[in-house]
Amino acid sequence: MNRESFAAGERLVSPAYVRQGCEARRSHEHLIRLLLEKGKCPENGWDESTLELFLHELAIMDSNNFLGNCGVGEREGRVASALVARRHYRFIHGIGRSGDISAVQPKAAGSSLLNKITNSLVLDIIKLAGVHTVANCFVVPMATGMSLTLCFLTLRHKRPKAKYIIWPRIDQKSCFKSMITAGFEPVVIENVLEGDELRTDLQAVKAKVQELGPDNILCIHSTTSCFAPRVPDRLEELAVICANFGIPHIVNNAYGVQSSKCMHLIQQGARVGRIDAFVQSLDKNFMVPVGGAIIAGFNDSFIQEISKMYPGRASASPSLDVLITLLSLGSNGYKKLLKERKEMFSYLSNQIKKLSEAYNERLLHTPHNPISLAVTLKTLDKHHDKAVTQLGSMLFTRQVSGARVVPLGSVQTVSGYTFRGFMSHTNNYPCAYLNAASAIGMKMQDVDLFIKRLDRCLKTVRKEQSKESDDNYDKTEDVDIEEMALKLDNVLLDTHQDASS
Amino acid sequence: MNRESFAAGERLVSPAYVRQGCEARRSHEHLIRLLLEKGKCPENGWDESTLELFLHELAIMDSNNFLGNCGVGEREGRVASALVARRHYRFIHGIGRSGDISAVQPKAAGSSLLNKITNSLVLDIIKLAGVHTVANCFVVPMATGMSLTLCFLTLRHKRPKAKYIIWPRIDQKSCFKSMITAGFEPVVIENVLEGDELRTDLQAVKAKVQELGPDNILCIHSTTSCFAPRVPDRLEELAVICANFGIPHIVNNAYGVQSSKCMHLIQQGARVGRIDAFVQSLDKNFMVPVGGAIIAGFNDSFIQEISKMYPGRASASPSLDVLITLLSLGSNGYKKLLKERKEMFSYLSNQIKKLSEAYNERLLHTPHNPISLAVTLKTLDKHHDKAVTQLGSMLFTRQVSGARVVPLGSVQTVSGYTFRGFMSHTNNYPCAYLNAASAIGMKMQDVDLFIKRLDRCLKTVRKEQSKESDDNYDKTEDVDIEEMALKLDNVLLDTHQDASS
Amino acid sequence: MNRESFAAGERLVSPAYVRQGCEARRSHEHLIRLLLEKGKCPENGWDESTLELFLHELAIMDSNNFLGNCGVGEREGRVASALVARRHYRFIHGIGRSGDISAVQPKAAGSSLLNKITNSLVLDIIKLAGVHTVANCFVVPMATGMSLTLCFLTLRHKRPKAKYIIWPRIDQKSCFKSMITAGFEPVVIENVLEGDELRTDLQAVKAKVQELGPDNILCIHSTTSCFAPRVPDRLEELAVICANFGIPHIVNNAYGVQSSKCMHLIQQGARVGRIDAFVQSLDKNFMVPVGGAIIAGFNDSFIQEISKMYPGRASASPSLDVLITLLSLGSNGYKKLLKERKEMFSYLSNQIKKLSEAYNERLLHTPHNPISLAVTLKTLDKHHDKAVTQLGSMLFTRQVSGARVVPLGSVQTVSGYTFRGFMSHTNNYPCAYLNAASAIGMKMQDVDLFIKRLDRCLKTVRKEQSKESDDNYDKTEDVDIEEMALKLDNVLLDTHQDASS
Amino acid sequence: MNRESFAAGERLVSPAYVRQGCEARRSHEHLIRLLLEKGKCPENGWDESTLELFLHELAIMDSNNFLGNCGVGEREGRVASALVARRHYRFIHGIGRSGDISAVQPKAAGSSLLNKITNSLVLDIIKLAGVHTVANCFVVPMATGMSLTLCFLTLRHKRPKAKYIIWPRIDQKSCFKSMITAGFEPVVIENVLEGDELRTDLQAVKAKVQELGPDNILCIHSTTSCFAPRVPDRLEELAVICANFGIPHIVNNAYGVQSSKCMHLIQQGARVGRIDAFVQSLDKNFMVPVGGAIIAGFNDSFIQEISKMYPGRASASPSLDVLITLLSLGSNGYKKLLKERKEMFSYLSNQIKKLSEAYNERLLHTPHNPISLAVTLKTLDKHHDKAVTQLGSMLFTRQVSGARVVPLGSVQTVSGYTFRGFMSHTNNYPCAYLNAASAIGMKMQDVDLFIKRLDRCLKTVRKEQSKESDDNYDKTEDVDIEEMALKLDNVLLDTHQDASS
Repeated sequence: MNRESFAAGERLVSPAYVRQGCEARRSHEHLIRLLLEKGKCPENGWDESTLELFLHELAIMDSNNFLGNCGVGEREGRVASALVARRHYRFIHGIGRSGDISAVQPKAAGSSLLNKITNSLVLDIIKLAGVHTVANCFVVPMATGMSLTLCFLTLRHKRPKAKYIIWPRIDQKSCFKSMITAGFEPVVIENVLEGDELRTDLQAVKAKVQELGPDNILCIHSTTSCFAPRVPDRLEELAVICANFGIPHIVNNAYGVQSSKCMHLIQQGARVGRIDAFVQSLDKNFMVPVGGAIIAGFNDSFIQEISKMYPGRASASPSLDVLITLLSLGSNGYKKLLKERKEMFSYLSNQIKKLSEAYNERLLHTPHNPISLAVTLKTLDKHHDKAVTQLGSMLFTRQVSGARVVPLGSVQTVSGYTFRGFMSHTNNYPCAYLNAASAIGMKMQDVDLFIKRLDRCLKTVRKEQSKESDDNYDKTEDVDIEEMALKLDNVLLDTHQDASS
Repeated sequence: MNRESFAAGERLVSPAYVRQGCEARRSHEHLIRLLLEKGKCPENGWDESTLELFLHELAIMDSNNFLGNCGVGEREGRVASALVARRHYRFIHGIGRSGDISAVQPKAAGSSLLNKITNSLVLDIIKLAGVHTVANCFVVPMATGMSLTLCFLTLRHKRPKAKYIIWPRIDQKSCFKSMITAGFEPVVIENVLEGDELRTDLQAVKAKVQELGPDNILCIHSTTSCFAPRVPDRLEELAVICANFGIPHIVNNAYGVQSSKCMHLIQQGARVGRIDAFVQSLDKNFMVPVGGAIIAGFNDSFIQEISKMYPGRASASPSLDVLITLLSLGSNGYKKLLKERKEMFSYLSNQIKKLSEAYNERLLHTPHNPISLAVTLKTLDKHHDKAVTQLGSMLFTRQVSGARVVPLGSVQTVSGYTFRGFMSHTNNYPCAYLNAASAIGMKMQDVDLFIKRLDRCLKTVRKEQSKESDDNYDKTEDVDIEEMALKLDNVLLDTHQDASS
Repeated sequence: MNRESFAAGERLVSPAYVRQGCEARRSHEHLIRLLLEKGKCPENGWDESTLELFLHELAIMDSNNFLGNCGVGEREGRVASALVARRHYRFIHGIGRSGDISAVQPKAAGSSLLNKITNSLVLDIIKLAGVHTVANCFVVPMATGMSLTLCFLTLRHKRPKAKYIIWPRIDQKSCFKSMITAGFEPVVIENVLEGDELRTDLQAVKAKVQELGPDNILCIHSTTSCFAPRVPDRLEELAVICANFGIPHIVNNAYGVQSSKCMHLIQQGARVGRIDAFVQSLDKNFMVPVGGAIIAGFNDSFIQEISKMYPGRASASPSLDVLITLLSLGSNGYKKLLKERKEMFSYLSNQIKKLSEAYNERLLHTPHNPISLAVTLKTLDKHHDKAVTQLGSMLFTRQVSGARVVPLGSVQTVSGYTFRGFMSHTNNYPCAYLNAASAIGMKMQDVDLFIKRLDRCLKTVRKEQSKESDDNYDKTEDVDIEEMALKLDNVLLDTHQDASS
Repeated sequence: MNRESFAAGERLVSPAYVRQGCEARRSHEHLIRLLLEKGKCPENGWDESTLELFLHELAIMDSNNFLGNCGVGEREGRVASALVARRHYRFIHGIGRSGDISAVQPKAAGSSLLNKITNSLVLDIIKLAGVHTVANCFVVPMATGMSLTLCFLTLRHKRPKAKYIIWPRIDQKSCFKSMITAGFEPVVIENVLEGDELRTDLQAVKAKVQELGPDNILCIHSTTSCFAPRVPDRLEELAVICANFGIPHIVNNAYGVQSSKCMHLIQQGARVGRIDAFVQSLDKNFMVPVGGAIIAGFNDSFIQEISKMYPGRASASPSLDVLITLLSLGSNGYKKLLKERKEMFSYLSNQIKKLSEAYNERLLHTPHNPISLAVTLKTLDKHHDKAVTQLGSMLFTRQVSGARVVPLGSVQTVSGYTFRGFMSHTNNYPCAYLNAASAIGMKMQDVDLFIKRLDRCLKTVRKEQSKESDDNYDKTEDVDIEEMALKLDNVLLDTHQDASS
């Protein structure tokens, strides 16, 4: 409503009330102006009504929402379903242009603003989360893995001779596939066992670099967030190697934004050595639906180069989700989530520790892993070789999601490469174990339910084991699980793989 | 509501009424069952209430919506913002798994079903639109260009020696970039002028294949939908060349699903020769927001290979959009849109023809192009070399979107390759021209408004030209345009590029 | 977004695009300004995006949506459920104040504007629909019946001696109850049969007025829209009687806005005689959910008096519904609906006529009733006294809603008054019949389905009748209906009453 | 989805996952079944997805949502605007029938269930809130005042001779008007001052009853929730008088459900004497939009009689709001809100007390009022007779809503009755004062902001006063307020009245 509208309103109801309403409007506008001017995440989360006003205002700047528009092109933002239009707040044109996913669209000033603002907010949050010197970033509506692929494809043009990517092993399929898809040969560096932890073998990395020759190496591809007992790679040292040999360094920081430790590693790596880009998932760090990633880096122009590699326009949906989420939370809300996650991590550790001791198991000592925990399943493993996978099924059917059992000796071939001890990040980890993680958004109730159900499952598995050893197995007692387990036979492998991805 | 709930309901209100309500429910369920059993697009579009019921039912099958779920993983479908959850109908887990974008997710049976059903519906529609023997397809939440890149990356593993992609020239950036990004060297085949039309130079293609050697060629990359006066490539003949030389053939069918001619070309190409995959945009063919593409082909296992190349989970948003749209429209609704588009094409042709003659211009004769039209701008070009681009600005500021002026002699460098006569698909087209297209969803009102505004703009440009030639230019008369044009100086190039992408 | 925000936007994306977006915004604002200034229904319906922008702008003028508000009263527009807030577009304060349902609320300038605008639009539509000299009206969130009660209660204060209301009989319960609830004694004037039509007995009215004495009569309470074969009351003549005797006149125009004939009667009545208020349903005339009525009249101050009789604030929900509906439709859209209704009335008449003749029945000749039709059920009635009600059940269970069978001789007591021939508006109508109506929003498909199902039902009933008369009734042949009919025994009466209300 | 659909789903994705999804569905269904069977508010609030599933399931039981329905009546639940349909979850038929607002509609089994369930839940909550022996209640989509009117109109039929309503004075307009509108003569019983409190003058009531004669009295109309220093009426003693004299007793419990004290008074009154009905606002007790009330009582058949007095169908909107709200909150959520309100009352008392003492004012001692507080404005009143109203304006313009200043000596005429000392519930309260209330949903932030702003306003008013007394008023210093106050002159009275209603 403009001035004339308010004036007309004053004639309909009392001017004093309309004026107060108009005044109130200004406070919404003030927030919007601040956002556009500063490009920073507001400290306090926005009210839903400010948020919707903002989105509405942006949307009507797109040509498909012009009241007098006529379209004679092949891409005019026409929408057949009102439901679809509404769920996208009438942003139809996506983001970017054929040349550049960060570019401005003449037909869609609103969507373009949305894109710019989102990238700006996300940059702000990355700084806040610990990578203070990040130079640029952008949201891309692709999985973390595919985004890594895009980074590798960009590097190809700068290093035409390179064929190899040095990759400290992490047993996560899409991570591995990102290199295969980009057409490179991953050079797997096995991890070393230090105490319970699996850590980067820096000597092996350096040796491999020298063996293959730096020019033949596209980059080192390291990882922060991962399942215990693997811990984040030694980023600082890797970054120094990269700097020394003039090799690019791409970091898979999949769900690392939520951990100050992971972010600190990246910041330090960039400070003392070389990191070209680090890639993180939107959904895992910002509690939005699956589908987007952030590609960030310390060199503005390299990040721009990557953004120019995406051929075509892209979905605005992940950007919209993260924009809504960050404006709703505010930086204070996001910080609160980070704090709660940390607390929940301690709580989960303690509860698992207690439970494991009751079953003569042990929480692995993995102090460098800030998110994931692992608890041994030695006693299961000993009695019954299927018991470990059965425990996984049982947890799954009891609506525990995300727990992941890792049996010994599983072998998997991915894109022609064979991994022994797959899922455990090493050929021969000393024992089977179970993973659980404290990720952003986890509630105390999740922990409590998990511990309770795990307790019950362990009890059942034990009982069955002892019965079986007594050759006295009572099939009627826990029919459901048996039946389910049977039916889940073909699910089992899947379940574990899922957990690992 | 289950049987017990209905029974309880019968005790609260009259059983006869509840029974009738329950009966009515069955008709919704019947539609859902048919869909799941047949996997085909329903003939008649669904009611919004059936649609929402269906989506709701699917969503509660995902673990993030289980009432008793506890999540202890790093990716649990948690959502911070209720607005975001709602706009995705609470589908949070995306589609696919780390290994395969078409794979089923254990944590998300509902999202997995959504994905399967969508792909199945889309396959049905592709058949209906003319490619009857298509074997498989999948929706991927990436631009058409990036999807082409994925196809090329998949082929790389099958043709390790190949470096080149044979590409009949089409002046559309993302199309060109899709090859660059994948790391291949595009071999540009200039088009030949036949009458007004620009057509595939089959001899040049064949000669190039023989010159480079088939094994060094990754594939031929042809195009259907394009701006006139270029017309769809001679797919049949290209497909035969591919078959004969054992070279893969990837077709960019960006907005070709909407045209029976384009679809027929693909069907024929596959019948008489070789087509490995054809890629089409979701937004341009199905009136959904930008962000997705369909990769389809005639060999089930090759399409599966491509789907296994996407590393990681992906956004379900484009799939959800197209699912909602197709269920709302039904196959009859979609066919109706196709029919209307064809009619609108005739109407637009006639109207442009009439107008152009009034200005001593000519509608180019391009009978092989079923979607795009071109009208000469000879008279503008002659008088004033900036007049062509000025016309573009004027249309833009008058809310005509998608019209595209093509001046003579524009030169553009894309990723190191220089294109003379850029935007016109050839080095020296005989004249400048203006494009307009009749794309799916276009309304008669669009045509009428366009013709009216174009008329006015042409009049203004002419007047200015004559004034200038009289050295008697009255600057006050049309200040707005002048001022705007000035400010648009830096926009101009962009505008045209946009139209071309 | 204000000027500073746009300026900030221009720095983020190209100024030319932002300016165009800003320009586009102005066209929305222009529509809003026109609405507020003129208070008239726009000719062309608004786009959903203009509509939502407008509602959003209004809502943020209410104190519950002030970002800095603090509430220390007992009624602060707080909402516990976000779903509820959203579905009301965050209008929480309702309309009106303790003293007056049309009054402005200091706490809620937006809701107050909404209320004013809605009443203004509705007034405009009433004029457009035929009552050109209407002076004032307001939407009240109560049923038509309760709204009539409010009119009667208002009149009580002006006519303290009056005890009676003169009421030409119409067999619709809430209509009758509106007088009982207000505490008056209805004086029923039986209708006279003219041809097939039941019409107002003017002589009886006049005689009754003289018998009771004008001062003892609160008002005459007449009716326009009604089920055939009753037709609208002779409003002109009644209005003259009212004027001559100085008696108020309240018209129940329940679903008469949709008929130019009904509206014309009111306009004429007011011109030649006296009409104090006429009351119409929102849902039946404007295709909104049940729950509101419009009280309108020719004397501004009397309508204000009525609005001041409602003690307390009221739901804004019906006002919001009608506002959204009218702005979506525009006056052209509403006129189109009126036109289609008329056409559908002809179509329905013709189809029923044809069908009835095939069964030796007859469409009653009721030219004064512009909405409802009646077709005789003589043949059913003759053979089998339950056949008429059975037909009603059968139609009901076959998802024909709104059809209404009227058997002979039904007697009903309402609030102590006994009506013979209840539902037929007269003690002894010559035959049983079936009603169907062409109301606003009816589609050709409704008519076709109805005719088809009625045909089938009539066939079935006939067959059963002939079987029974042959004493040869095959119970297995049409079990469903029999069974259903049995179970519907206790529903039957209800069904008919429903149809009659 | 039914069994066949799930079976089809199992063929599309893994059976184990579909089965788990199907299992998960059952937990939603279980909650719905419990609700329908028990008719009680669930202890724990429902998830939004269960809630929407439930509403969706109910809605498709209404004939307007039948896929095969054909409507040939005048009221078929047709909706012109999709926005409107959606915001009502496609419940279009409203609640009740012409004969009875609680009756079941044949055309709308879903809406009928919604209505029954809502009334059942609300009854449950009234018991939980303290009136354990309540027998029946129903939600009516009218203001509290209009609902009281309906009660009075119902009583009229039982007591044809009665003309008077005995009414202990409470200065709230709609309360008074509810009797006027119903056509009765209010007999005002002035309150007595006990300490700071204004309480029911039982002697005067009894004397009046005897003077007028019980048969001439329709009922005693008492009040619980009210602004301090008036306190809830002495319900027990009034109920005993009613029982002894055989006079009905209607209690205005406007916002009393939120206070255990008010509810206890009603329970006690009914136990020891006579209470026929008690009426409460939906919005003020359940944090829903304005527009509904609950009429409750201890005699099932009397409550049914009232529900049968409402002529016509009514809006389902308030019922839907309270249903959604109660299911979202659960009884535990509602209890929590009650508890927080009580705590906030203490907090507000303490903060006001502290502030008032700093300004030489005093928190009035009104221990019998559990919701509203009053603080003296003696010092303002002394210096400057406009200062009290100015304070009101200043608070209003500073976005403090609901605070209410009560100057001395205001006289108001309502419907012909003159009230001296209007707003203060008595002719001559000893001093001017300010009211604030702790109502359900109030937050600590509301209190803190209020105290801060009140402090600032008091400071400003004082400063101005001292300046004026020095004859040294600097008009420039606080221009805004002055200017605003000037413009608010005509607002002032309104503001106060608003607060009082």
